[in-house]
Amino acid sequence: MKIEAEWMRGGTSKCWVFETDHLERAGANLDDLLPRLFGSPDSRQIDGVGGATSTTSKAMILSRPADRDVDVEFTFAQVGIEEASVDWGSNCGNCSAVVGLYAIEKGWVVPDGDSTRIVTRNTNTGQIIIQRVSTPAGALPIVPDAQMPGVVFPGYRVGLGFQNPAGKTTGRLLPTGSATDTIVAGGTRWTVSMVDAGAPVVMVRAEELGLDTARYDTWKAGVELQLDTLDKIRRQAAVRMGMAAAPAQAARAVPKLAIIGPPEGPDAECDVNVMMLSMGKPHPALAITGSIALTLAARTPGTVLNTITGNTDESVLKLRTPAGVIETWSEEQGGSLLVGVDRTARTIASSIIHLPETLGNVVEASLATATR
Amino acid sequence: MKIEAEWMRGGTSKCWVFETDHLERAGANLDDLLPRLFGSPDSRQIDGVGGATSTTSKAMILSRPADRDVDVEFTFAQVGIEEASVDWGSNCGNCSAVVGLYAIEKGWVVPDGDSTRIVTRNTNTGQIIIQRVSTPAGALPIVPDAQMPGVVFPGYRVGLGFQNPAGKTTGRLLPTGSATDTIVAGGTRWTVSMVDAGAPVVMVRAEELGLDTARYDTWKAGVELQLDTLDKIRRQAAVRMGMAAAPAQAARAVPKLAIIGPPEGPDAECDVNVMMLSMGKPHPALAITGSIALTLAARTPGTVLNTITGNTDESVLKLRTPAGVIETWSEEQGGSLLVGVDRTARTIASSIIHLPETLGNVVEASLATATR
Repeated sequence: MKIEAEWMRGGTSKCWVFETDHLERAGANLDDLLPRLFGSPDSRQIDGVGGATSTTSKAMILSRPADRDVDVEFTFAQVGIEEASVDWGSNCGNCSAVVGLYAIEKGWVVPDGDSTRIVTRNTNTGQIIIQRVSTPAGALPIVPDAQMPGVVFPGYRVGLGFQNPAGKTTGRLLPTGSATDTIVAGGTRWTVSMVDAGAPVVMVRAEELGLDTARYDTWKAGVELQLDTLDKIRRQAAVRMGMAAAPAQAARAVPKLAIIGPPEGPDAECDVNVMMLSMGKPHPALAITGSIALTLAARTPGTVLNTITGNTDESVLKLRTPAGVIETWSEEQGGSLLVGVDRTARTIASSIIHLPETLGNVVEASLATATR
Repeated sequence: MKIEAEWMRGGTSKCWVFETDHLERAGANLDDLLPRLFGSPDSRQIDGVGGATSTTSKAMILSRPADRDVDVEFTFAQVGIEEASVDWGSNCGNCSAVVGLYAIEKGWVVPDGDSTRIVTRNTNTGQIIIQRVSTPAGALPIVPDAQMPGVVFPGYRVGLGFQNPAGKTTGRLLPTGSATDTIVAGGTRWTVSMVDAGAPVVMVRAEELGLDTARYDTWKAGVELQLDTLDKIRRQAAVRMGMAAAPAQAARAVPKLAIIGPPEGPDAECDVNVMMLSMGKPHPALAITGSIALTLAARTPGTVLNTITGNTDESVLKLRTPAGVIETWSEEQGGSLLVGVDRTARTIASSIIHLPETLGNVVEASLATATR
């Protein structure tokens, strides 16, 4: 059995991009099929296409919907590494950046003018993401030349605009009804903000973790010593946001947790310093879905992030991350609020993945679960 | 520019397999081309096909030589991760296991009987490796089913027989003329054996490193505390074996270093406990080329390994590694000595790699260097 796939970089992630039709031909449940293709369970994923890290063990499944208002529908799969499992509970913003480029490269969407607009819908969250791919003079450049923080090589410029992102998971921008709340974890009281936009995120103040806000370069080491406590905060937040009945039942991927602190000084090139956790470890850059929540939190009076940024009319928010400063933007468009960020994307390889064994069941049941 | 390649697992490594012709069409120097394809320099190789670890940033370049005594000629490239460079100085035994399978899958060699013999020549070292691929009833099994230590999933069985492997790099099995030597490094005198077969290897006694020979599971932590000293020993050995004029000039990949100790007790399922270093870190399994040196060292009176195993007529040597017990074998065949090990291999994906930029120069100059 052989399965077509494109291996693409989206932002700071690498992901395998499949079409629904091609996966259905394999005749296997996706919860079995994807881990086998990726080489899981195995901490090294040595017999499959996975990259053995959370940012390189990802799949995107694309289809062209009957709904004519949407160009491409996509489902994100976080493929387990040491476990043969798939987490369907959230979207990946970095990987989302491959969708518009894929649609143009495959001829699903014809480039139109200097910037081509592709309407995409993520099925994990129901989020519409309006993508704008740079197509100067109506075509993808022969040599991609757009740069972004955290990636050494250039790619194609892709703008991601999350349409009306508030409350897509919990129904409300502030799921608890409050801009700040107190969570008790590890014997300490933490003042946090819980915000749902792009993804549900709990924001923790760097000062309360004892991090030196004047030395962002020391955060990673400090954070790694407190991962257990941070996970306890995250699980408490899952319950408070109505996403889990008890801390032990919280999903691994959401809510996300972001540690935030003020810029290092008046000359800092950012509005806020941020370190996010990804699957329990410091993220090498930024979870893009989470950056949407940060952007709306900055605009919401009373949140721990708004206390740092103050109320502002700026449409751009500058977030310092381990990979550099990342800018998010907000704009009104046709009665909708678009909150977004620019990424780059590139196709690394066009592949036929070899599946050595025959796996049972039918892929459709699994897709139905993912899109429910 | 697009370049054909097969992504294959060979033993406990993943490597990208190219044909010389396909690379030449790219019209670029391989020392520039391979790092770009792999996404180097970048500790995450996020914009390329590399896996960001020493065992997954490897390439094999295959061709069918005019010499009718050899079926396939191959060159191994260890592609740098944080540096945009290629190390051509040694072969990779695990990756070598893909060569025979590739030849059968591409129709270069027609399967013959239950086990198909493929004569391969590694150009980095001049080593002939006789490969035997299991082809029951004259064909590759539809579903590969051979298991090996360190790999969760099955593959095709490949036996690798290194033909007369002694002295391929230095000219002699014992490059210093002695079965044991004393090396001074880190203020301590170390009793070591330096043996050249498959790859040049310096063997260090676990006891002298203060490791608990009755507790192999504690070695990794103990070794990681002494990496600086071990690298000093390795560099001294490079000079003593005539491979470098001074310690600072020693190559990174060779000589290899192996730490050895006696089995934990009379009921142990191995003849010797081994931990190798790979690019300065504990190897997750075993460098197969180095295992050839260990096998001949066990058969050579007076080496530090022979002191553990004693003289024996056994044709099989059982090496305990972090990935499990690996058996090597030796046999006389047609007047030659074959020393080898069984691996499994599998094609993971057939790919077209996208090269976004045009790189200068000509590939041939680089290949000529690699095969000199």
